Amino acid sequence: MQLLGIAAMSLDGCLTCHDRPGTGFASAEDHAFFQDALQTFDCSIAGRRTYEAAREAILRAGPGPRLQIVLTSTPGRFTEARTDHLEFRNAGVAEVARELTRRGRTRCALLGGTGLYTEACALGLLDELWVTIEPVAFGEGVRMFRGPVEFRFELAESVALSGNTLVLKYRRLGG
Amino acid sequence: MQLLGIAAMSLDGCLTCHDRPGTGFASAEDHAFFQDALQTFDCSIAGRRTYEAAREAILRAGPGPRLQIVLTSTPGRFTEARTDHLEFRNAGVAEVARELTRRGRTRCALLGGTGLYTEACALGLLDELWVTIEPVAFGEGVRMFRGPVEFRFELAESVALSGNTLVLKYRRLGG
Repeated sequence: MQLLGIAAMSLDGCLTCHDRPGTGFASAEDHAFFQDALQTFDCSIAGRRTYEAAREAILRAGPGPRLQIVLTSTPGRFTEARTDHLEFRNAGVAEVARELTRRGRTRCALLGGTGLYTEACALGLLDELWVTIEPVAFGEGVRMFRGPVEFRFELAESVALSGNTLVLKYRRLGG
Repeated sequence: MQLLGIAAMSLDGCLTCHDRPGTGFASAEDHAFFQDALQTFDCSIAGRRTYEAAREAILRAGPGPRLQIVLTSTPGRFTEARTDHLEFRNAGVAEVARELTRRGRTRCALLGGTGLYTEACALGLLDELWVTIEPVAFGEGVRMFRGPVEFRFELAESVALSGNTLVLKYRRLGG
């Protein structure tokens, strides 16, 4: 199964504006890109905080073809769980990736946050990383990786979503 | 006088690899770009730590046409000072920018670090920001801005230095 990390980022490497959860700072073009991109995945993994920042929109959209897995230490607390659509697990990325493979899923989006991106890269599970770079700087916010780490990538593609916003698509290199 | 910030960054927003000073992580293409770019400036401003990370190379290169100003609380300690070439000041970015303007300089590179980028942006002194994005992630390192801030830019140009490395040239927007 392919695993791709997707994130929107300020030009100084913040995934949130200060301590405000979610990607409200991202452009309309990025939101559209993200929704379109999600349709190319048959499953996704997100941490509990990442899920909660988007929970309202996810529940409003209702169940779709993509199996969404949320990692949390308290899965029983989420009564909105629905098998094959929205599931909650007290497990790590590696275990859930193995489970998704067993269940026949082939293309998984990793939606954050910091802990999951770092775990997936450190374990060599991440195949690609798509980073949208918005023309803002926040100084403080959630970061992509919990360091110190040293992950290497190669740039596969750079796509302009507008005159101001680029998506940089990286492939993970070993070592 | 135009003031342009220049920096090399990991894809997760680190200006250094962990606590190692300098831009040793940057590609050969970025080093060449940076040296070429510097020749288009008649002056530059750097903080003391940024200067010290590059000091050996600067002294080896010898005096050039660009007036280099280093901001430090202890200017008297730097015996390598040479008027009109390498000067040390106990002053802020705004004061030094005014002085450079009075001395007829027209195009100044701001070379970091965090404190100077933040000060120049917060005071509305920075006209452009050129960020080289390298295909590595470090999790920890010097960051571009000390937050929380909220600076807005527009993307003026994106230049590929190689298949893996882009320079994003931003113009600062007010507000």
